[in-house]
Amino acid sequence: MSSNTGSIKSHSTVAQARLTTISSHISTNKPAKVVVCRDLGPDVMPILTERKDLEVVLWPEDRACERPWLLENIKGATGVLVMVTDVVDEELLEVAGPNLCVVSTMSVGYDHVDLNQISKRGLRLGYTPEVLTDAVADISIMLALMAGRNVNETMAIAREGRWPQFTWSPFALCGPQFSTTPQSPKRTIGFFGFGRISQATLTRAIAFGVTDCIYYANPASAPKPERDEAILKEHRPKLKSLRPVDLVTLARESDVLIILAPGGEATKHVINEDFLKKMKKHAVLVNTARGTLVDSDALAKALREEWIWGAGLDVVEGEPNLQKDHPLLKEPRCNVLPHIASATLETRLGMATLAANNLVGGILGEEMPAELDAKQ
Amino acid sequence: MSSNTGSIKSHSTVAQARLTTISSHISTNKPAKVVVCRDLGPDVMPILTERKDLEVVLWPEDRACERPWLLENIKGATGVLVMVTDVVDEELLEVAGPNLCVVSTMSVGYDHVDLNQISKRGLRLGYTPEVLTDAVADISIMLALMAGRNVNETMAIAREGRWPQFTWSPFALCGPQFSTTPQSPKRTIGFFGFGRISQATLTRAIAFGVTDCIYYANPASAPKPERDEAILKEHRPKLKSLRPVDLVTLARESDVLIILAPGGEATKHVINEDFLKKMKKHAVLVNTARGTLVDSDALAKALREEWIWGAGLDVVEGEPNLQKDHPLLKEPRCNVLPHIASATLETRLGMATLAANNLVGGILGEEMPAELDAKQ
Repeated sequence: MSSNTGSIKSHSTVAQARLTTISSHISTNKPAKVVVCRDLGPDVMPILTERKDLEVVLWPEDRACERPWLLENIKGATGVLVMVTDVVDEELLEVAGPNLCVVSTMSVGYDHVDLNQISKRGLRLGYTPEVLTDAVADISIMLALMAGRNVNETMAIAREGRWPQFTWSPFALCGPQFSTTPQSPKRTIGFFGFGRISQATLTRAIAFGVTDCIYYANPASAPKPERDEAILKEHRPKLKSLRPVDLVTLARESDVLIILAPGGEATKHVINEDFLKKMKKHAVLVNTARGTLVDSDALAKALREEWIWGAGLDVVEGEPNLQKDHPLLKEPRCNVLPHIASATLETRLGMATLAANNLVGGILGEEMPAELDAKQ
Repeated sequence: MSSNTGSIKSHSTVAQARLTTISSHISTNKPAKVVVCRDLGPDVMPILTERKDLEVVLWPEDRACERPWLLENIKGATGVLVMVTDVVDEELLEVAGPNLCVVSTMSVGYDHVDLNQISKRGLRLGYTPEVLTDAVADISIMLALMAGRNVNETMAIAREGRWPQFTWSPFALCGPQFSTTPQSPKRTIGFFGFGRISQATLTRAIAFGVTDCIYYANPASAPKPERDEAILKEHRPKLKSLRPVDLVTLARESDVLIILAPGGEATKHVINEDFLKKMKKHAVLVNTARGTLVDSDALAKALREEWIWGAGLDVVEGEPNLQKDHPLLKEPRCNVLPHIASATLETRLGMATLAANNLVGGILGEEMPAELDAKQ
């Protein structure tokens, strides 16, 4: 999951304007109605349910909230806590009515929220950035290791009972090593996108002996030589170089290439045939951002024709609707996970807690721990 | 694969005694016959084949060398290069005859070599320690991550085409996070055995935020407080503590427990029901040493009854003869790889190169890069 950037406002001016309404609402002693689209579990729900000033209306099923239920229950609500599966559009906000002042999404992304409508209606929006940085960095390293070690192929040997028939040989099942060795002392990690998660992934990679880092940054953003110098200084002498590069260099020089950038039209299919053909034969590709960045057919071809060594994907374009015969699922060197990068107990608990606290902050007209400026 | 320790002799005195024979052998200009039990590939074979003073007899198949072929061809050989699959016993050494002066095994372990016979006959023995440290440390971290992230279960969802039907929920597919988070800032890694590979694994783990390290060391070996102090100093302030503990503490306090110790009778089934019952419910167990250390039935029970979270195994007792219905292969939370810890192109190339150079050094009566003292 990529770290979509959004400026966190310490206090929304629009929300300030609504403060009087909310305060008066609360001063009536009538609890403010909040709709919660998913049970957040016994560790988090009390943040909401134990407040006497809130009336919590909770979607009762352990599956995505149904739209008709949400449309019915959001009427007159002061706040709503949604998941990525819940579309927050004009219709929903219109039905909610004038009491609504805050939308809190338990996600770092907000493709499911109509930012224009949020802004136009003077609503506050909470989201859950940063909390998942370490979980996603962990899985980025895991998938890089798995792609190099052919885990999809090798686990199948054991699982399917083919281990007894397997013939050992000096180079059987061997793949490129993630860490450096005395015979192979240089290793370059490349990042498409170099935000917080990429930097946390780099920190881990350096402990494996990775010596050089290159990255491709959004051309619209300003270069950050001071930041890079600080990272380099922190990790010297293990890390020997860190520099922004163009796409061709990123493709040509990366031993491990990790995609950690927002999805959307601007980055659609940046990893295509042309890019993959330029990569090293022993390189591995990891995508822990959004499926749309990679052209799946091109990657399947690259793996089939051995342009690159392997791939580790937590996301695939068109997910979750991948049938068993999807071209990438047929490639033995492609390790595919069902979008679980942030799926750790600690991180999801952190996200749920943040989403609940964002909701409460918004309702009270106080500071929200992570508020997104919808006007950006 | 564990780092079996063995003292590397800079020069064998026994071999010195045989030096005259060998030198005279070479001075006759008749090439010394060496038997190589496996093709080591185009990067390594020339170390042997391009030497005019050697006559290389190579097992021609891409599978384990057949015993009758070896018994036939070793007659009169000066050296032999073997794999773990080739048993070096009294019979073989007797058939080889008096010219034999060196056995070089492409492995860190030497269970397949009769050390008494090697010693008694005054032969030199080469092996390949250390080269695989980083490869095994990599896979130890990979398996710890995989066990926490339920990879065996989650990959199956994608592979088997069940992703479209999968119902997302805030805590679905979640496992314990390897790295620390602000809400969960302490993480303890435990090692059964604390040699070079464990230390290399620790270095990697610290970059994920692991804060504390405990280990259980062979009771016969002397405590090493100075070494531990040096490691702690190197990694402060990230690493807060490093200390040897007893088995009960190791079981009770480890969030991630990694087994990296020699096999054999002394360590057989040290990880048993009693040990597993003491572990944390969210702990993961990794075995990248030898299968015999873990009681497979006890581990299967521990996973089935959820005493621990998951396991990552590169080795299993009785391997490779694991049928599809092996109790550990039936556990969804058990990630089993077919003993590929050292299987990287770089490491196997390093091992093959070292084995070839050991052979040459032994034949010439010169220093062998990694010689084992068979009399230990």
